[in-house]
Amino acid sequence: MKPSISKGTRDFLPDEVIRRQFIFDTLRDIFELFDFIPIETPAIENLQTLTGKYGEEGDRLLFKILNNGDFMSRVSDDVRMGGSSAELLPQISKRGLRYDLTVPLARYVVMHQNDLQFPFKRYQMQPVWRADRPQKGRYQEFYQCDVDIIGSDALMFEAELVAVYDQAFHRLQIPVEIKVNNRKILQGIADVIGAGEKFSQFTIVLDKLDKIGESGVAKQFDEMGLSSDQINLVFELIKENDIAKLEIALNKSETGIKGIEEIKKVKQYLRTQEFNNNIIFDWSLARGLNYYTGCIFEVVSPKVNIGSIGGGGRYDNLTEIFGMPNVSGVGISFGVARIYDVMTELNLFPDSLEQRTKILLMAMDEKSHQYAFECVVKLRHAGINSALYPTAAKLKKQMKYAHERNIPVVGIIGSNEMENQRISVKNMDSGEQNDHQMDDLIKLLS
Amino acid sequence: MKPSISKGTRDFLPDEVIRRQFIFDTLRDIFELFDFIPIETPAIENLQTLTGKYGEEGDRLLFKILNNGDFMSRVSDDVRMGGSSAELLPQISKRGLRYDLTVPLARYVVMHQNDLQFPFKRYQMQPVWRADRPQKGRYQEFYQCDVDIIGSDALMFEAELVAVYDQAFHRLQIPVEIKVNNRKILQGIADVIGAGEKFSQFTIVLDKLDKIGESGVAKQFDEMGLSSDQINLVFELIKENDIAKLEIALNKSETGIKGIEEIKKVKQYLRTQEFNNNIIFDWSLARGLNYYTGCIFEVVSPKVNIGSIGGGGRYDNLTEIFGMPNVSGVGISFGVARIYDVMTELNLFPDSLEQRTKILLMAMDEKSHQYAFECVVKLRHAGINSALYPTAAKLKKQMKYAHERNIPVVGIIGSNEMENQRISVKNMDSGEQNDHQMDDLIKLLS
Repeated sequence: MKPSISKGTRDFLPDEVIRRQFIFDTLRDIFELFDFIPIETPAIENLQTLTGKYGEEGDRLLFKILNNGDFMSRVSDDVRMGGSSAELLPQISKRGLRYDLTVPLARYVVMHQNDLQFPFKRYQMQPVWRADRPQKGRYQEFYQCDVDIIGSDALMFEAELVAVYDQAFHRLQIPVEIKVNNRKILQGIADVIGAGEKFSQFTIVLDKLDKIGESGVAKQFDEMGLSSDQINLVFELIKENDIAKLEIALNKSETGIKGIEEIKKVKQYLRTQEFNNNIIFDWSLARGLNYYTGCIFEVVSPKVNIGSIGGGGRYDNLTEIFGMPNVSGVGISFGVARIYDVMTELNLFPDSLEQRTKILLMAMDEKSHQYAFECVVKLRHAGINSALYPTAAKLKKQMKYAHERNIPVVGIIGSNEMENQRISVKNMDSGEQNDHQMDDLIKLLS
Repeated sequence: MKPSISKGTRDFLPDEVIRRQFIFDTLRDIFELFDFIPIETPAIENLQTLTGKYGEEGDRLLFKILNNGDFMSRVSDDVRMGGSSAELLPQISKRGLRYDLTVPLARYVVMHQNDLQFPFKRYQMQPVWRADRPQKGRYQEFYQCDVDIIGSDALMFEAELVAVYDQAFHRLQIPVEIKVNNRKILQGIADVIGAGEKFSQFTIVLDKLDKIGESGVAKQFDEMGLSSDQINLVFELIKENDIAKLEIALNKSETGIKGIEEIKKVKQYLRTQEFNNNIIFDWSLARGLNYYTGCIFEVVSPKVNIGSIGGGGRYDNLTEIFGMPNVSGVGISFGVARIYDVMTELNLFPDSLEQRTKILLMAMDEKSHQYAFECVVKLRHAGINSALYPTAAKLKKQMKYAHERNIPVVGIIGSNEMENQRISVKNMDSGEQNDHQMDDLIKLLS
C-alpha cells in the first residue's frame, strides 16, 4: 500500500515544528506580558454552532463529520431515494470541524460566563479546517492565533492591542507597519458624500484599494452609482492627514464624529508610549468584514510582498447569536503561516533553534560504546541535550549522521580516550578538534 | 439559540490550559535532553491510511469526514436505494480524523524517508479523536504524547527510554514505578509450559492480572485449556526474581533465551546510571498489543489508583504496511490526561503557574487612570506581566476582579499617588500595603 496524505494537508518536519514553536512561544510570552490568558476549544463542534455563521461559502467549506454507527438508519425513505446532498446532510451529520476561533470563542464565553472574569482577556492558538481548494501556500488545515478582550468597551484596549502587535513583531524582529482606522469614520465618510445607505458595499470596494488602485476603486464606485464629485471627495477625505480638518469635514455625521472621538482617545493612550514600529492612521483601511463596528487594525511587513500578517478590530455583538447581547469586544489575530514565511524569507529564525542537540558522542568500538553510554548519561545529568550514536559504526557513517542532523559538536571515544578518561571533541563548523575531560566538556557546552 | 458543545468534547479554562502546557513544556525539555526532535502530522488523514489498522472496533470508532460538495452525486443508484451504511461509506467519505500517533508516524517515516536521518528519534504531542461512548474521564478528543526511535534495533534505546520516563516523572515530581518486561520472555514462558501456539491469547489473559488477580487469570487459563500444572508453572515463572534461574527454566525456548539476552543487555545499560524511581523487572507485564515484539514498558504511580500513566515497547514492523519492511522501532507514550489528573490529586502543579499576571493596577478616578496607563506601560517595558483595570470603577469591584483572577499584587493609584509619583501596592495574600516608586516596584516584581 502506497502511503499518501490527504490533499490540502501537510506533515511538518522537525525544523518546521521547532521554528513554528518558536513563533508560538514568543507570542505567548508577549500575550502574557499584557495579561492575556489561554483557552482551548475542541476541534469538533456541533454543526448547529457553526452553520450560518460564515456566510454561504463558509457553510460550503465547513468539514462535516459523518455520524457514527449505522448513520443511514435514521434517514427517511423519501430523502434516501430522492433527496439532494443538502437534504441528506442534516440526517447523517451533526458535527463539523472548527472553522475559525471566533465563533467558538463566542460559544465559550456564553457557556462559561459564570466561570470567567470580565473583561476577559484571552488568547488562543489552535488549528482550523476549511475545505478550500488547495493551492500554493493555502492549506485545508492551518493554525489561527487570536487575542481578544471581551466584555469592555474601554478604548484603552485598542491601544493595548496596538502595543501587543508592536512588541510581538519587535520580538520576532519583523519590521512592520501597524495601520489603524475606525469603521465609524468610514461610515462618516460614506454619510457626508451621501452614500451612507450603501455603506457595506462602499467598504467592500474601498477595501480593494491596495489591490486595484485608485482608478480601479473609482471605477467600482462609479458602478455603484457614485458621481465623480462623490468619488473625488472620498479620495480627498481618506488622504486627510489633519484629524482636526477631518473632524470638521465629518461634522454632519453623528457616527463620523463618534469615530473621530474614539480615534482621538486611542491616540491619547498611544502617545504615552514609544513604539518600535510605525503606527499609521489610515482612513482608507476598511477590512472587509461588516462584523467590525469601531477601531480596525491591519499589520503589513513593508519588506515582504505577502499581504497582511495580522488584522482585527472592535465588534459589538459577538455573543448575541448565542443569547448574550450587548457584549463589546476587541481583538486581533496573527497570521502564523505568513509570519513563518516572512521570517524564513528574511532569515530571522535564530540558528540555535535547529541545534537542539549540542553534541553527538561516537564510539569507535564495542567496548568504548559502553563507556560512551556512561558519558552521555553524565552529559544529560548536567542538563546538556546530547546523543550517542547507537552502534560503533564506521566513523564516516557516524560523522555523516551528525552532519545531516546539524549537530554542532561531536565527541569521539575510542580505547585511547577511554583509558585516559577523555573525549576527543570536534567542532563540526570550524573543524577544530581538542581533547577534553568530562568536566571541561560540560563547562564548554553549558 | 442555546450554545452547546459536542458530547465527548470539552473546553479548557485558562488554568487548565496553563497546567497542561506546563506538562507539555516539561516533557519537551526532557525529550530534547535525550535528542528527540518534534514532528507534526495533520488531523485529517485519508481513510485508506487509517482503516484496518486498529481492528474492527477501531474502524468503528474512527471519525469519518463527509466528502465536500455534492457528496451524493457519485453514489451509484443501487447503493443509494438499498445499500447499508457500510456500503455507502466509501462513496461519500474518503477522509477521517487521526486516531493515534503511531499509524501517522509509520506513514510519515515512509513518505519522508529521504528527508530523515536514521535512527530517527521523534516526539509528537497532538490530539487524537475516537468515537468512544463518552463517560467520566473519557473523551472523544484527547492528547497523545509519543516518543519513538525508528530505524535501529540497538538495545541502548530501551535503556534510554527508561531514563526518559525516569527523568520526565522526576521533573513532574510524580513518584512512579517503571515496569519492564520482554515479549520474548513471555513467549518463552508460553513455549516451556507448552502453550506456545496460544501465545496471543495467553498474553491477553495475563494482561488482566492487575484487574482480576491470580484466581481470575487461572480461571481464564483453565478455559483456554491449560492444565493446573501448566497454570502453576506460569505463576512460578512470572515470579522468578533470579534471572539466571529464569534463563535455565526457559532454555528450551529459543525465543525465551533471546528475550533473556535482551533483558540482560538492557540491564547492563541501566546499571551505569542512577534513577530517581524504581525500575521493576516484572515478567507478568504483558501489554495487550500483539504489535510489540521485544521489550515492553509500563509506568504506574503507586500513590494514585488510576492505572498506567505510560507504556510502550519495541516493535519490528511499524512501516511494513506502507511498503518499507524490516524497520525496527521502540517507543513510549505518556498518558497526558491521567498525568494531569495525578498531578491535580497530588497537588503537584506549582502555584506560580496560575499567577501569570504579577500585578493589577487600579485607578481611583479618570485622571489617575491615564497616569496608571503610563505606569502599566512602564511595567511591561520592564518585562513584568501586568494589567490595568480598564476603568476607574469602584475599588471594591476592581479588588474583586483581582481576587477572582488570582492576581497576587494590586497597585492602587489615585490623585495622591499620581502627585507623589508613587503607587500604593497591596499584597493580596498577606494584605500588607506599602507605597513604592516605579523603580522599586519593578525591582520588587522582577
